[in-house]
Amino acid sequence: MIKRLAIIGVGLIGGSLARAVKRAGLCEEIVGSGRDVVQLRKAVELGVIDRYDLDIASAVRDADMVVVAVPLGAMEQVLRALVGHIRPDTIITDVGSAKASVMTAARNVFGEVPANFVPGHPIAGTEKNGVEASFTELFQGRRVILTPLPHTDAHALAQVHLLWRAAGAEVVEMGVEHHDEVLAATSHLPHILAYALVDTLVRMDAGADQGEEIFRFAAGGFRDFTRIASSDPTMWRDICLANRPAIITLLERFRGDLDALTDLIRASDSEGILAIFNRAKAARDRYYQKENHNSGVK
Amino acid sequence: MIKRLAIIGVGLIGGSLARAVKRAGLCEEIVGSGRDVVQLRKAVELGVIDRYDLDIASAVRDADMVVVAVPLGAMEQVLRALVGHIRPDTIITDVGSAKASVMTAARNVFGEVPANFVPGHPIAGTEKNGVEASFTELFQGRRVILTPLPHTDAHALAQVHLLWRAAGAEVVEMGVEHHDEVLAATSHLPHILAYALVDTLVRMDAGADQGEEIFRFAAGGFRDFTRIASSDPTMWRDICLANRPAIITLLERFRGDLDALTDLIRASDSEGILAIFNRAKAARDRYYQKENHNSGVK
Repeated sequence: MIKRLAIIGVGLIGGSLARAVKRAGLCEEIVGSGRDVVQLRKAVELGVIDRYDLDIASAVRDADMVVVAVPLGAMEQVLRALVGHIRPDTIITDVGSAKASVMTAARNVFGEVPANFVPGHPIAGTEKNGVEASFTELFQGRRVILTPLPHTDAHALAQVHLLWRAAGAEVVEMGVEHHDEVLAATSHLPHILAYALVDTLVRMDAGADQGEEIFRFAAGGFRDFTRIASSDPTMWRDICLANRPAIITLLERFRGDLDALTDLIRASDSEGILAIFNRAKAARDRYYQKENHNSGVK
Repeated sequence: MIKRLAIIGVGLIGGSLARAVKRAGLCEEIVGSGRDVVQLRKAVELGVIDRYDLDIASAVRDADMVVVAVPLGAMEQVLRALVGHIRPDTIITDVGSAKASVMTAARNVFGEVPANFVPGHPIAGTEKNGVEASFTELFQGRRVILTPLPHTDAHALAQVHLLWRAAGAEVVEMGVEHHDEVLAATSHLPHILAYALVDTLVRMDAGADQGEEIFRFAAGGFRDFTRIASSDPTMWRDICLANRPAIITLLERFRGDLDALTDLIRASDSEGILAIFNRAKAARDRYYQKENHNSGVK
């Protein structure tokens, strides 16, 4: 049981977490804070949080746990606002999509990452944002990665596990660097490709309505593909900057692979093209079949 | 009213078209043909077609219309099987995803593209294939592109319009070359990127279970993105070969744009990254908002 939970940044993620822990009866009181008073008022109106305080220092006073759910670009500034206003035993956790950069921010602010700071990242989201897009089930059955450091406090870690399990998530732990590599692959690279693809297509014939024609004749796959290009540009810009090394490594690798595939198509190398397509389909189908099997879905 | 409709290739597309025109009461009889007797038997069992004949020459005898719904790689061979077995007034249409290559196949077989040949392409599909994946509503509200030539017979064209409208589709016409450029952008490039991405990620750490780890931590966007990499590899190999010039042009353009974006990330050029992401999101949202508005959906 958490007596007072402070959530800094009550948007899609912060708002959905608040809804879920409220539903689970895990907290006595949830206090919201952040820059956007309209969002915070809306969050109170919707019953997502109990009250808000625009001043982070007041919002976190006597909080048992502080969840920092702001864009990566605002992380350091928000952590700095906590200094001197939280209790020594207040647990801090975050939801940032790149963990090394959050660790750097914490070190810049606190000298070293506090033992009560449990870095976290829920693998969930939609292309929408803001508290009005938040919903109780966002984390249901989704995975949350925690990246504790060797000196992270065991009790703090257990409490953050509890928080996310109450929200319906499956909690796993991995190292900071490994997290950043895996997420660069599963999330950051696909988003960058989707943005780049839509941008390429839209600019193909800027004079005419080619942009519109492109979308008009887009079938299901393309719509799904480009849906993620409708995600919050600022958030994704921040992610690109925060996880730059892992992203650049992957972009370079992907470029090499795409060049090789392009060469195969250019040479009409039927076998070579088919080998790549088969390998990709097999890997994907293998995993999702196994997952569906495990979850009892046919 | 079509007395006898012959469908060569009763898979996802051919099967769904058969179901839809049957439901619409447009045909007296639908005869299926193709290479796969198991699929054809299943199609009769499911009531998708009335009967089948493995011999294309017999299947198309006295047909008023022949729909060729086979992979692009089999197109020329199937068209050749029609020679001498269809009536002079039999209408031929196809569903190939690249139209210039179908025109070449028709010219190779018939000397010139017959006036009764109406090239077509329904912008619909799923990542599944086979007649068991077919369903009546596949074309409902979807677009079908016809690419008639200057000498295409007006009556034949009108009949193919009728066929697809009966299946619930919106029919539009455009030139062969324009079709191939638009589809390279909206469909072929996204599929190639999805295959390439999945393949890159799966091979990242072939020794360990990295491939699985990648999928395990994939959130919604990535799943959508990679779902299209689960499409039929042979079909997509055929498309790459058939629409090679337009695809290569686009791949080169995309590569240039991706290199530029990579450079911006490498240089931590915050404004430059944001400009691209914003432009992509704006274009996509603009179109889908308009479309939702037009269709009365909020």
